[in-house]
Amino acid sequence: MIAASSFLRTRATALTVKAEATTQVKRNKNVAKLQAGYLFPEIAKRRNAHQAANPDAKIISLGIGDTTEPLTPYIMEGLKKGAEAMATKEGYKGYGPEQGYAPIREAIYNRLYSGMDGLNADSIYVSDGSKCDIGRMQMMFGEDVTVALQDPAYPVYVDSSVIMGMTGSHNGDNFDGITYLECKAPDFFPDLSKAPRTDIIFFCSPNNPTGSAATRQQLTELVAFAKKNGSIIVYDAAYALFIEDPDCPKTIFEIPGAAECAIETCSFSKYAGFTGVRLGWTVISDKLKFADGSPVAKDFVRIATTVFNGASVISQAGGIACMEDAGWKEMNELVAYYKENAKILKKTFQEMGFTVYGADNAPYVWVGFPGRDSWDVFSEILERCDIVTTPGSGFGAAGNGFVRASSFAQRENVLEAVERFKKAYGGGQ
Amino acid sequence: MIAASSFLRTRATALTVKAEATTQVKRNKNVAKLQAGYLFPEIAKRRNAHQAANPDAKIISLGIGDTTEPLTPYIMEGLKKGAEAMATKEGYKGYGPEQGYAPIREAIYNRLYSGMDGLNADSIYVSDGSKCDIGRMQMMFGEDVTVALQDPAYPVYVDSSVIMGMTGSHNGDNFDGITYLECKAPDFFPDLSKAPRTDIIFFCSPNNPTGSAATRQQLTELVAFAKKNGSIIVYDAAYALFIEDPDCPKTIFEIPGAAECAIETCSFSKYAGFTGVRLGWTVISDKLKFADGSPVAKDFVRIATTVFNGASVISQAGGIACMEDAGWKEMNELVAYYKENAKILKKTFQEMGFTVYGADNAPYVWVGFPGRDSWDVFSEILERCDIVTTPGSGFGAAGNGFVRASSFAQRENVLEAVERFKKAYGGGQ
Repeated sequence: MIAASSFLRTRATALTVKAEATTQVKRNKNVAKLQAGYLFPEIAKRRNAHQAANPDAKIISLGIGDTTEPLTPYIMEGLKKGAEAMATKEGYKGYGPEQGYAPIREAIYNRLYSGMDGLNADSIYVSDGSKCDIGRMQMMFGEDVTVALQDPAYPVYVDSSVIMGMTGSHNGDNFDGITYLECKAPDFFPDLSKAPRTDIIFFCSPNNPTGSAATRQQLTELVAFAKKNGSIIVYDAAYALFIEDPDCPKTIFEIPGAAECAIETCSFSKYAGFTGVRLGWTVISDKLKFADGSPVAKDFVRIATTVFNGASVISQAGGIACMEDAGWKEMNELVAYYKENAKILKKTFQEMGFTVYGADNAPYVWVGFPGRDSWDVFSEILERCDIVTTPGSGFGAAGNGFVRASSFAQRENVLEAVERFKKAYGGGQ
Repeated sequence: MIAASSFLRTRATALTVKAEATTQVKRNKNVAKLQAGYLFPEIAKRRNAHQAANPDAKIISLGIGDTTEPLTPYIMEGLKKGAEAMATKEGYKGYGPEQGYAPIREAIYNRLYSGMDGLNADSIYVSDGSKCDIGRMQMMFGEDVTVALQDPAYPVYVDSSVIMGMTGSHNGDNFDGITYLECKAPDFFPDLSKAPRTDIIFFCSPNNPTGSAATRQQLTELVAFAKKNGSIIVYDAAYALFIEDPDCPKTIFEIPGAAECAIETCSFSKYAGFTGVRLGWTVISDKLKFADGSPVAKDFVRIATTVFNGASVISQAGGIACMEDAGWKEMNELVAYYKENAKILKKTFQEMGFTVYGADNAPYVWVGFPGRDSWDVFSEILERCDIVTTPGSGFGAAGNGFVRASSFAQRENVLEAVERFKKAYGGGQ
C-alpha cells in the first residue's frame, strides 16, 4: 500500500510538472481544422514505411511533381555569376526590392506578357515561388472572403484558405464554406452555370492534377463569370510552358478583361528545374481593384514588404539567364524532356486499356481506376511495382478513383516504371 | 446648356465604366488598418525626393540596417559550389525539406546551440530569413492571441500582428489591443512588474533599434515572467553575434526553462552579408506546447509545408560554409568591421555632447535628441548632412526623440559621415 501510494504521488508530481510546462497559448483553431498532414509529406511517410519494410526495393517516384534533371549549363552559369558578383564591391547587393530587381521583372514581361492589356514590367512581382506567393495572397485577402476552387485541385489552395480562417470545419468529405467546382472527364472544366458567386476563384491551368489545359473559349467564359460576379481569379499558370495546343492560352492575360479580374502566379520551378533554387512570379495589373477602388497590387506589396524580403539575388540572376535566348532554349528543351516522359506514361496506360487524361499539355498523367479508392490504388501500386504515385483523392473528393503519375523523373526510371506497370497491370486491373 | 449636359453624361458614363472595372471583393479590413507604408520604403521615398531636389548630393545611408560589404571568399565559394552541384546528376536537388537539409540544421545546432536544454538539430528550422519566419509564425498563431512587444521595436512585429487581425485600429499613437512595453534609457529593459499577461511577447536582443542587449539576469526575469503567464516569447536574436559583453547571452536558450516558453529566430543576413542571399533559421524545442499540449513546432512545420518551400538550396550551401571554421572566422571579421563602424559613430556623437546608446553589443547607435520630433530630426540630418538615418518614432511612440544610425556602411562613408555630422552638429544642436 505504501509503495502504491508513493507511486501515485510520484506520478501526480510528474503530471503537475508536465502541466506547468505547457503554455496557456491557445492553438490556432484554424490550423487545428486541417486534416492530417499536407499531402506530400504524408506520401513521403508511406514511401519511407514501404522502403523500411522492403529494404531492397528500388522505389521509383512518380509522386510529387519534383524535377529530377540537373540545371542546364547557361542557367547554372547565371546562378554562379550571381554568387560571384556578390563577392565584389561593384556587384554586391543587400536587401533588394521585395518585388524583385527591375531587370528580371522586365525580362519576364518582355518574354511572356509583352503588350498585353493592362500589364507592364511593374505588374510582375518576382518571388521565391508560387506556393509562397499564394500564402502571401491569402494573408492579403484575409478571412472575410469566400473561396471557390477546382475539385480536384492542388492542396495548397484549400489548406491556405483553412489556415487563414476562410472556411468552416471539415465535414468528413470537404471543408464547409469552400465552393468546390467539380471538374469531370473528359475536359475537367467546371460547370460555371451552376456555380455560386465567390470572392476568390482559384483556377489552375494546365491543371494539377488532371493535366487538362483550358481552351481560349473556356477561359473567356471564366473571365466573363468572374467579371459578372466581381470575383478575383487566382490563376495558377505554373505549367503553362507545357502547353502545345495553340487553342489553349499560356496566360490568362491573353483573355480580354483579365487584367481587371485576375492575378496570375507562375514559377521557374518546373521550367528550369528551380524547385530547389526557388524563384517564381505573380502578375497583378494596376487595373485590378478591390470593391473600395483600391488597387490589389498595393496591398500585395504591403504584405510582401512586411513579411518577405524578396527572392534570393542569386536565384534572380539565374532567372534572368532563363529569360535570355540561350536560357530560354534550354528551358524549353527541359520541358520537352518531361513532356516526352508524360507521353510515354500515357501511351503505356492507354495500351493496357486504362482511361487516361493529361500529358498532352501538362507534365501530369491522370489515370482512371473507376470505382476504386485512390489511396488503395496508391498502396497497391507501391506494393506491386515499388512505384510512388499520388492518390487522386489527395487533391479533393472528385479526384477519387484516379491516381496522378508525374513525368518529373529520369527517363531511365520512367522506362523501368513502364516495365513494372506492364508486368503488374498488363493483363488488366 | 447642351454642351454642359453632354459633358455630364460623358462623365457619368466614365464613372459607370470605372465602377464596372472594380471587383466586389472587399479589401482586408486588417490591411486597411495599417498606417502609411512600411517604415523603410517610406524612408526610401523621402531619400529619393531629397536626391531629386539635390541632384549633386552624395547621400550616405545610415538608414535601413542593410549590409554593404561584399561576401567573403570562403562563403562565396560555398554558394558557387552550391550552384555548380545543381548542374550535376549527383548534386542536383529538387524540393528539399521545408525545414532545411539535415547538414545545415546540424551545423547551426553544433555551432550555436550545442547541448542546450531541450534542443537538438531537429529544433533548427532553416528558412529564407527571420522576417519571413515571423510572418509564418503569425500565420500559425492566428488572430485569437494577444501580443506584447518592446516600444520601440522592429516594425514587423506590429505590422504582422495588425495584418493577422490580432489588434484593433490605430488610435493616433498606437494600435489598440497591442501591449507596448516601454523601454527607457539607460538599459531599455521593460518594467515587467507592471506588464499585463499576453499570449505572445516579441523580444529583440540585441535590440533593434536601441542597440541594447539584455543581460542574463534580465532574460532570466523575462523567462520567469513568460512561464508565470504561460506566454510564448518570440526572441529575435538577429544581432546576437554583435554581443561582446559576456554577461549578455547570445541566445535565450542559455536561460533555464526557455525551451518551454520561447521561440528564437535568427539570420545570416547581418552575420554574413546575406540580406540579399536570404537565409535564416528559427529554433523551437519539442518542449514548447500550446495550451492543449500540442507541440508548437508541429504547427510551425504545417504552416511551412503549406505556404513555403524551404530556403534556396544554393543559399543553404552558403550557410553551411558560414558554419565551417573558415566561414565562421570570416563572419566574425565582418561583424567586427561593422562593430568598429558603430563605435566610431558612437564616439563622434558622444564627443559632440549627445547622449548615445547602443553600439557596444549591436550594430546600431541610438542618438537622443530630447524633446524633438524624430521625423524632424531625420529631415534635418538629411537636409544638412545628406545622410539618411532612421527616425526613432518609426519604431514606436517611445522611440520619439531619437534617431537610429546604422553601422552597416562602408568605412569610408562612415568617416565621411562623421565629418559631416561634426560640421553640422559640432557646435551643439
